[in-house]
Amino acid sequence: MRFSKFGDYLKADSGILGLMQDIDAAMTGPDPMLLLGGGNPARIPAVQEVFRVSMQQLLNDGDRFENIGGSYDGAKGDSVVGHALASLFKERFGWDIGPENVAITNGSQSSFYTLFHLFAGEYSDHPFRKILLPLTPEYIGYSDIGMGDNLFRSYQPAIELQGNHEFKYHVNFENLVVDDDIGAIAVSRPTNPTGNVLSDSEIAKLRALARSHGVPLILDSAYGAPFPNIVFPEITTDWDENTILCLSLSKLGLPGLRTGFVVANEEVIRAISGANAIMALAPGSAGPALTRNMIEDGRILDISNDLIRPYYKAKVQNAMTWVNHAMHDLPCRIHSPEGAIFLWLWFEGLPITSELLYQRLKARGVLVVSGEHFFPGLSAPWAHRQECIRVSYAQEPSIVKKGIEVIAEEVRRAFHDGK
Amino acid sequence: MRFSKFGDYLKADSGILGLMQDIDAAMTGPDPMLLLGGGNPARIPAVQEVFRVSMQQLLNDGDRFENIGGSYDGAKGDSVVGHALASLFKERFGWDIGPENVAITNGSQSSFYTLFHLFAGEYSDHPFRKILLPLTPEYIGYSDIGMGDNLFRSYQPAIELQGNHEFKYHVNFENLVVDDDIGAIAVSRPTNPTGNVLSDSEIAKLRALARSHGVPLILDSAYGAPFPNIVFPEITTDWDENTILCLSLSKLGLPGLRTGFVVANEEVIRAISGANAIMALAPGSAGPALTRNMIEDGRILDISNDLIRPYYKAKVQNAMTWVNHAMHDLPCRIHSPEGAIFLWLWFEGLPITSELLYQRLKARGVLVVSGEHFFPGLSAPWAHRQECIRVSYAQEPSIVKKGIEVIAEEVRRAFHDGK
Repeated sequence: MRFSKFGDYLKADSGILGLMQDIDAAMTGPDPMLLLGGGNPARIPAVQEVFRVSMQQLLNDGDRFENIGGSYDGAKGDSVVGHALASLFKERFGWDIGPENVAITNGSQSSFYTLFHLFAGEYSDHPFRKILLPLTPEYIGYSDIGMGDNLFRSYQPAIELQGNHEFKYHVNFENLVVDDDIGAIAVSRPTNPTGNVLSDSEIAKLRALARSHGVPLILDSAYGAPFPNIVFPEITTDWDENTILCLSLSKLGLPGLRTGFVVANEEVIRAISGANAIMALAPGSAGPALTRNMIEDGRILDISNDLIRPYYKAKVQNAMTWVNHAMHDLPCRIHSPEGAIFLWLWFEGLPITSELLYQRLKARGVLVVSGEHFFPGLSAPWAHRQECIRVSYAQEPSIVKKGIEVIAEEVRRAFHDGK
Repeated sequence: MRFSKFGDYLKADSGILGLMQDIDAAMTGPDPMLLLGGGNPARIPAVQEVFRVSMQQLLNDGDRFENIGGSYDGAKGDSVVGHALASLFKERFGWDIGPENVAITNGSQSSFYTLFHLFAGEYSDHPFRKILLPLTPEYIGYSDIGMGDNLFRSYQPAIELQGNHEFKYHVNFENLVVDDDIGAIAVSRPTNPTGNVLSDSEIAKLRALARSHGVPLILDSAYGAPFPNIVFPEITTDWDENTILCLSLSKLGLPGLRTGFVVANEEVIRAISGANAIMALAPGSAGPALTRNMIEDGRILDISNDLIRPYYKAKVQNAMTWVNHAMHDLPCRIHSPEGAIFLWLWFEGLPITSELLYQRLKARGVLVVSGEHFFPGLSAPWAHRQECIRVSYAQEPSIVKKGIEVIAEEVRRAFHDGK
């Protein structure tokens, strides 16, 4: 069977697709694995109870359950929920927004697929503009959105060592070049995979930079503020007409319901609606319906701040203790864990690639993600890329602890053997 | 804000997007409308009860409810459901398939977005192949998938008059040209909008034609067999490695859960999985989870054959009676209603365009869809295109009856006034 180039790319399992297949095969294979690789959120009992009660209420509330499944939402998504979200953000944060500034999507990956194609690629006045990623490492899921085209101009970060066991990436502002070849600036906050949280002043600088060049700032807040707010330092989240804020229900605990939100100016929202219509008719109704009451009464913020954030904050402290204990004799640094659900471990001078480490760990029954996949658009050789791994700390403590111990053993062996 | 060409297209509300906006505005506007325009399925009480019971069972079955929302499915979708669907079709219809032949998507529109781009557009050995649509009218949702590029080579049908009040389209086989510019053949069965059901022999001919030219036959069975099986004549549905069968839960009664199925050879399934991963990470879990038991025990076929098909069959008889009564003095023919949930009305010699009729009906509070939008890729002028409208008969009988009466009044006025 002959396929278009689009098809050739998709069925070749190239790029991240091969990695996803590999992870999927390991997860569903016959051998039990310690799954520290994926992005599944933790099962937080108090949060799960909220969703269960909400579904039960839907079932008890006349034909609301039937209305969820039985009708298409509009291309912009459930209009009651869009309205409620705008009201909530306007009231709590003073943002100057209305329902015309909110679109619902089939999850954050869908949002980014559309957004990156809205601002990267061919323009009527330019052969190919790109998305500027001011900081790598950056989210692995961005990489393949160009389907083989490189959509990104990416930058290495500045590295600040913190004590003996931690480090932190910063945006290298003096290096950034925003010119006519750039269509947008995009950044995740917290960063997936590193847990880095760009400071308010870094964000303010990026916002000013974007505005001064007439391009939007796309803020990936899948783990961030206002919800699920898995962010440990105190930060503010502003919004303006030039900011495109992307949110999701996934890390609130509902990844299976594939619900994303885009908060942006009306022109962007119209384009997102159009993309929804053409690619999916409409986004799914289940996620918005299940969380509607929590958005209407603002509980979604309380759940984030009072249940989700403290839960992960406690978890990350434990995980760091285990890492520091297990790797005390190794050149291991943890990226300052300011948010999200991962530890980003840097083994400086690792004599093997992170890809080989990933393979060895997989053979030992521990699934992580090799760090080299988190540098979308960065082609310059850089040893650091092959010295890091991403480890989820969202799973059961015993699994995380055991996984960390196996990682330490394999890294120790690599350093000892020099290969 | 500057947008790429992709963005310019999406935010311009061109093509079908403008129409969808118009319909959406009318539906959510202040004036009550008789909604005979959309594709929402009927609320069939016995079917709704099945879904309600299924959700209640999920809630009562340990942490199954938590598992739906709380984890990402793989890029191919819920593997238990994929496995069950393959087993069901193998057992009931003798198809030579396994779980490797099934992918789940975020609904049939998502399936078609991917499939049309898999087989239309640039190939490594050809600048631009197209999808051959052997028969128009054809589904409106196909039109914009090319985002401004015409992906289709389309054909006018042969028209068979049946008695004084009906007619039927047939594939004009002698006209079809399948050459090296064609990447796939696609057809909906039943056809949306006309309710036409291609006969087994027409499908066999298309299948042979596709195979002999080394291109796949894409069969859009969103309303068809094996489920929801809103098909009134007796037909068979075969599958082979060269057939790509697209199914959906929408017309089973769950459009809000956005769940589609693609049954195809392994190479196509791998490409669909890749597209899911890049565009959405994974398809939603709610639809597959809610229907898993029905797929496992085959009840999904019984629900289709015993509840859904008879329900629409009774409805369409009523609707035809109302049309024939209300339009007895008008040159109105109904396309032989063999399936799906629409009446396709042809007013031969209508002195106004169907678009103007649509506008006048909207002003009278009746929403239909103007027929001219259902000829994707057909550019040759043809009066017939402007003489038809699509009318849903899935809504409440009183609404359908009243709507038909208003349509008759407006059509009568147009013929009387000659404008």
